[in-house]
Amino acid sequence: MPENWFLEKHTPYAGLSLAVTARLLDQRSAFQHIEVLECPEYGRVLLLDGCVMLTDRDEHVYHEMIVHPALLMHPDPRNVLIVGGGDGGSVREVLRHDTVQRVELVEIDEAVIETARRFFPALSAKLDEPRVSIHCEDGFAYLDGHQGQYDFIVVDSIDPVGEAAKLFTSAFYEKVKAALRPGGIAVFQTESPFYSTEVLAQVQEKLRSLFGHVAPYLAHIPTYPSGLWSFTFASDAINPRTAPLQREPAFLDELKYLTPELVRAAFVLPAYLRRRLGA
Amino acid sequence: MPENWFLEKHTPYAGLSLAVTARLLDQRSAFQHIEVLECPEYGRVLLLDGCVMLTDRDEHVYHEMIVHPALLMHPDPRNVLIVGGGDGGSVREVLRHDTVQRVELVEIDEAVIETARRFFPALSAKLDEPRVSIHCEDGFAYLDGHQGQYDFIVVDSIDPVGEAAKLFTSAFYEKVKAALRPGGIAVFQTESPFYSTEVLAQVQEKLRSLFGHVAPYLAHIPTYPSGLWSFTFASDAINPRTAPLQREPAFLDELKYLTPELVRAAFVLPAYLRRRLGA
Repeated sequence: MPENWFLEKHTPYAGLSLAVTARLLDQRSAFQHIEVLECPEYGRVLLLDGCVMLTDRDEHVYHEMIVHPALLMHPDPRNVLIVGGGDGGSVREVLRHDTVQRVELVEIDEAVIETARRFFPALSAKLDEPRVSIHCEDGFAYLDGHQGQYDFIVVDSIDPVGEAAKLFTSAFYEKVKAALRPGGIAVFQTESPFYSTEVLAQVQEKLRSLFGHVAPYLAHIPTYPSGLWSFTFASDAINPRTAPLQREPAFLDELKYLTPELVRAAFVLPAYLRRRLGA
Repeated sequence: MPENWFLEKHTPYAGLSLAVTARLLDQRSAFQHIEVLECPEYGRVLLLDGCVMLTDRDEHVYHEMIVHPALLMHPDPRNVLIVGGGDGGSVREVLRHDTVQRVELVEIDEAVIETARRFFPALSAKLDEPRVSIHCEDGFAYLDGHQGQYDFIVVDSIDPVGEAAKLFTSAFYEKVKAALRPGGIAVFQTESPFYSTEVLAQVQEKLRSLFGHVAPYLAHIPTYPSGLWSFTFASDAINPRTAPLQREPAFLDELKYLTPELVRAAFVLPAYLRRRLGA
């Protein structure tokens, strides 16, 4: 087997190395550099601008954790908006919930969706379900035309650099809040709590000025920087640290990472984060 | 700054890469290859046989988590044995507990202790405290002469290869059990639950045939394989999933990772582990 290694620098001085047996795609879209690698340890790996977005082997952790805690706490989630997430993983997890009637996916880069359809069938398979509508648009602008419509908004964005930086601003968070229906919940991917503690802290501060309940939660994703990832839950109606799960649907038995007990445990922060975030 | 990178392969196809600015030590002891690297991201890094044992920046997670959950659940821990742990990190954490009267450190390789004293003062500083005795011996043999003596035994070993493989056998676990006093607790480092799920499963099986209560728990250690690490708690007297913490000492405010709530949350396993371990 050829010894070709890919290194993603998570900081200037540390990173993840993966052996690569093939580069299946190397393309520049209007928005970013898209690559697909074949890696013996993690299967197919999607890179955007050189950063691992997902791998066959561990993508389920991210997608289960960004979607299910909020949907299980919401009493009757019907309309869902996903900003980003063109790979289809968040759509797949949302569709497991029978209460959901409509999922809108707003992905700015159509090439990401095409790449997922071509190379990641387990992720993209549900993109053509009747409950799903796909909009290849800027999520920031899209929200303006859709106020008060969603029970759950997932912000499944890339890192806060370049075009995506605006998805980490108070202006964006205000639009997300305005797009929620009463009782709604938003969940944001919020980077590595270990390497990007300050990003996470700033997001908490901005969201706390807008929402009654804001709480970060964590999951172990081996191919993401530091191996630990954060999500932030925001709602005026539901406090995720105490809210009961409204349902324990049968599909929970099919999940590979999340359990009802783990929903609770994921909100318990290590001391350094609790101190910094004041949570 | 020179761009010298160290790669630790966690599997044949994936690993951690660290930029290195200096190699401070490169020595072969009677037992292993000992290196100390200076790395901008993690500070000083101790390698044994090419594997990261600890770094200045994240060693506290491992040492807080291998020591405090058990000591906080024990009603009156006085005598403690540490097998391995020549770096001094576990000793440092054990000594925070006022109830502890005696700590015996049994490290087979004196060169590890010397290396810690020379390059890792924050770890080794407490090795000369009056409550500590150091024995440069084989832990396996040492246990035979010390039956029924310890309230808490920490097995702070290296990976189960070479000389250390015997620290993962039923024969060793029987000796550990015999060395405990009534009501005692043993905690074992048990590898990456993600990459070494089968090692962890085998340890559970062996320990369950000996102890009434056996439970793995997890912590996030960025420089360890997959970023997630496991420890296994074993006791006839104390069920760690339900046992209350006996004390909340003032030093908890100084810890960087562990909190009382996190002790509880660390025992909640992801679905794939719960299924495989039957826990």
